[in-house]
Amino acid sequence: MSAEIFDKKTTIDLRKKHIGPSCKIFFSDDPLKIVRAKGQYMYDEKGQRYLDCINNVAHVGHCHSDVVQAGAQQMQLLNTNSRFLHDKLVLYAQRLQAKLPDKLSVCYFVNSGSEANDLALRLAKQFRGHKDVITLENAYHGHVSSLIDISPYKFQQLSDAEQNPFVHVAPSPDVYRGKYRANHPDPASAYANDVKDIIDKVHEKGGKIAAFIAESLQSCGGQVIPPVGYFQQVAEHVRKAGGVFIADEVQVGFGRVGTHFWAFQLQGEDFVPDIVTMGKPIGNGHPMSCVVTTKEVAQAFMSSGMEYFNTFGGNPVSSAIGLAVLEVIEKEDLQGHALRVGRYLTNQLEKQKEKHPLIGDIRGCGLFVGVELVRDRLKLTPATAEAQEVIYKLKEQHILLSADGPHRNVLKFKPPMCFAKEDIDLVVEKIDHILTELEKALGMKLANILNGGN
Amino acid sequence: MSAEIFDKKTTIDLRKKHIGPSCKIFFSDDPLKIVRAKGQYMYDEKGQRYLDCINNVAHVGHCHSDVVQAGAQQMQLLNTNSRFLHDKLVLYAQRLQAKLPDKLSVCYFVNSGSEANDLALRLAKQFRGHKDVITLENAYHGHVSSLIDISPYKFQQLSDAEQNPFVHVAPSPDVYRGKYRANHPDPASAYANDVKDIIDKVHEKGGKIAAFIAESLQSCGGQVIPPVGYFQQVAEHVRKAGGVFIADEVQVGFGRVGTHFWAFQLQGEDFVPDIVTMGKPIGNGHPMSCVVTTKEVAQAFMSSGMEYFNTFGGNPVSSAIGLAVLEVIEKEDLQGHALRVGRYLTNQLEKQKEKHPLIGDIRGCGLFVGVELVRDRLKLTPATAEAQEVIYKLKEQHILLSADGPHRNVLKFKPPMCFAKEDIDLVVEKIDHILTELEKALGMKLANILNGGN
Repeated sequence: MSAEIFDKKTTIDLRKKHIGPSCKIFFSDDPLKIVRAKGQYMYDEKGQRYLDCINNVAHVGHCHSDVVQAGAQQMQLLNTNSRFLHDKLVLYAQRLQAKLPDKLSVCYFVNSGSEANDLALRLAKQFRGHKDVITLENAYHGHVSSLIDISPYKFQQLSDAEQNPFVHVAPSPDVYRGKYRANHPDPASAYANDVKDIIDKVHEKGGKIAAFIAESLQSCGGQVIPPVGYFQQVAEHVRKAGGVFIADEVQVGFGRVGTHFWAFQLQGEDFVPDIVTMGKPIGNGHPMSCVVTTKEVAQAFMSSGMEYFNTFGGNPVSSAIGLAVLEVIEKEDLQGHALRVGRYLTNQLEKQKEKHPLIGDIRGCGLFVGVELVRDRLKLTPATAEAQEVIYKLKEQHILLSADGPHRNVLKFKPPMCFAKEDIDLVVEKIDHILTELEKALGMKLANILNGGN
Repeated sequence: MSAEIFDKKTTIDLRKKHIGPSCKIFFSDDPLKIVRAKGQYMYDEKGQRYLDCINNVAHVGHCHSDVVQAGAQQMQLLNTNSRFLHDKLVLYAQRLQAKLPDKLSVCYFVNSGSEANDLALRLAKQFRGHKDVITLENAYHGHVSSLIDISPYKFQQLSDAEQNPFVHVAPSPDVYRGKYRANHPDPASAYANDVKDIIDKVHEKGGKIAAFIAESLQSCGGQVIPPVGYFQQVAEHVRKAGGVFIADEVQVGFGRVGTHFWAFQLQGEDFVPDIVTMGKPIGNGHPMSCVVTTKEVAQAFMSSGMEYFNTFGGNPVSSAIGLAVLEVIEKEDLQGHALRVGRYLTNQLEKQKEKHPLIGDIRGCGLFVGVELVRDRLKLTPATAEAQEVIYKLKEQHILLSADGPHRNVLKFKPPMCFAKEDIDLVVEKIDHILTELEKALGMKLANILNGGN
């Protein structure tokens, strides 16, 4: 059933020949050939099992049977565009809306997080005819042209990067390594005031703010958890300037944070974005995504006179799959599970922090957790090579983890939501062992570090 | 199995409440609720069958069992991103490449025609660092921001449309209604020279041409078939200026034109684009698409230093479905079928043209056919209202056809490729009847028209 078509070398050769080289493969020196997956486990061509700690797309677990069945059944019946009425489309929109604050009531179904964020920008710009967009340092919002423009994580990779003059970058609200840290009396206001300053400067130059966009928790940017109250204050400044607040939930939505269904809700009940974008986990791997906004924003977009049609977006198969994902999250209480095992993961990692000087910070909510490695806990020197070493050593032990952030020194946990206590025990034990070896080689001791030495 | 969840009124109400109003529904006064489809037929909630003459997405037929099975099987096994090796990804790339000229050897798999065209523009601009793009009048290339910019079909809908200063619009190579017509001694060269003039003007202003982009046959633009030799000459001018030729096959690829697998091949063996984009039919409704280019263009893109990763693009399910579509096209000789029934369709329509003064032009290749309705065959006055009337009357008789083009007066045939001779007989008979009634009401007679009167 999972027989190989090509031997691994041929697969690699064909990939080199026919697949665009700009997509980096994991572990390029010895890449993995994965042939099947189930739950939080992936299997290579030899049947070797890998524990998947990173795939937030396989949200309810790889190849979940309810999702597969919903997709397969609908594929047999009908898969067409949304110029026809379809019950699953409207039922899905209704169910999704029920997960959101009331005023976020209008859905646009599209095919990827990138399409969602691009449409969100179009909605925001059309709303009042404004053009300037504020984004965060290290942000990543997608791969289409308009999103490269608002993704410093991407455009700073280019040597000849020209920043779009309508795009303005605010400091990342990172209280560990950022401009205002945990010891600041009010980092939320301080970071929000920086956004206010940007707005003032835009106004001085005659510009007008269309939107502030941020991931509710920065993912590629280094698993950053903004201080509570930051979004409320930013939204106030931005709305006063006539702009809208776009919360990008592509990486972090759908119950991953445990306490809430959406990560923006971590900021408090009093915060409601004007536009929410979704992606990766929404279809458990099926290419689909969604933008949800208010009636006012939707009406303004329509009154432009330009139609918006998306060939595949919201088709019956995508709707059936989206519905199945929502149902599995509820039926299996995956949000509650994320809260419980996520807390266990964070606790176990905190214990490691007490032992390992390389661990500078543990931060996260539910099953979205970052472990920032540093060579020096006072200077915060990024332990980039060490993070890579952890990833490679874990791979040897059949565990898939990755490192990200501007210094590529943050270990990222964002596993399928069925991740279990035993999985946590396994990966934490391996990390403990790897860090012990690394610290031995580096001559690092906790006592030294606490004294600021190395 | 196809039981309704909501009665039709509730479906309509929920749609109004929760679905972005910018997506126009077909026959908005009395929309269709489609619950299942097979081959070239769709069925509403009461079991009424509709003949589908327009859905070029359901390329090998709605819900083709081979495609459904391939998708369902792969969904059970594995659906992850392309940072892992996967045999179906490379096998699919190899099979797709085998359908193209040798030099088009590198594939980028993405999720929609819009993502494909956006990436094509990025590849083109990165190639030599040029920025100016030439597009055609009435062109439509997709719904993301960068593509609205190059789609006059879209941006001209906006009252306050500002044309992007790097975008230049060349005349549509329409030999029926365009600047140079069938009576011109060499319309191909004339239209190509207009592109050359644009290039010269761009150079005068210090700009540099990144790309010329065109659908191989304009679809929304009015089913326009460019004169043979036009693309070769344009490509020569554009390449001389350091730009690339992008052939957009999103609507027309995969054997639809009958004589060839790709519509750009209608221009002759001596024409090879630098980039080809695909979409709609590629996955028979599954959200997927592809950009294929040369090694040189791919290398230049990689050497920018910016990674290109697409979460869903080229996943095992999309690859399995794409492979199944290619296999069905071959197994059922759908390209040959498109040629045969397409010729029959064109012949039957030509006979109608002899009878009906409202028919100004019949044009097409294979199962991509346009019927342009005019109120006056000399003045070419668009018969827009009449085209709408034909569409609505056909719907009453359970046949789905649409009208497009800048004047919305071109009846568009682009049915699933399993469209049969009997289907053609049915739809042509109905059109004959509707046109007869319309012409009677308008007092139109062929003899009057031929004399230039009305």
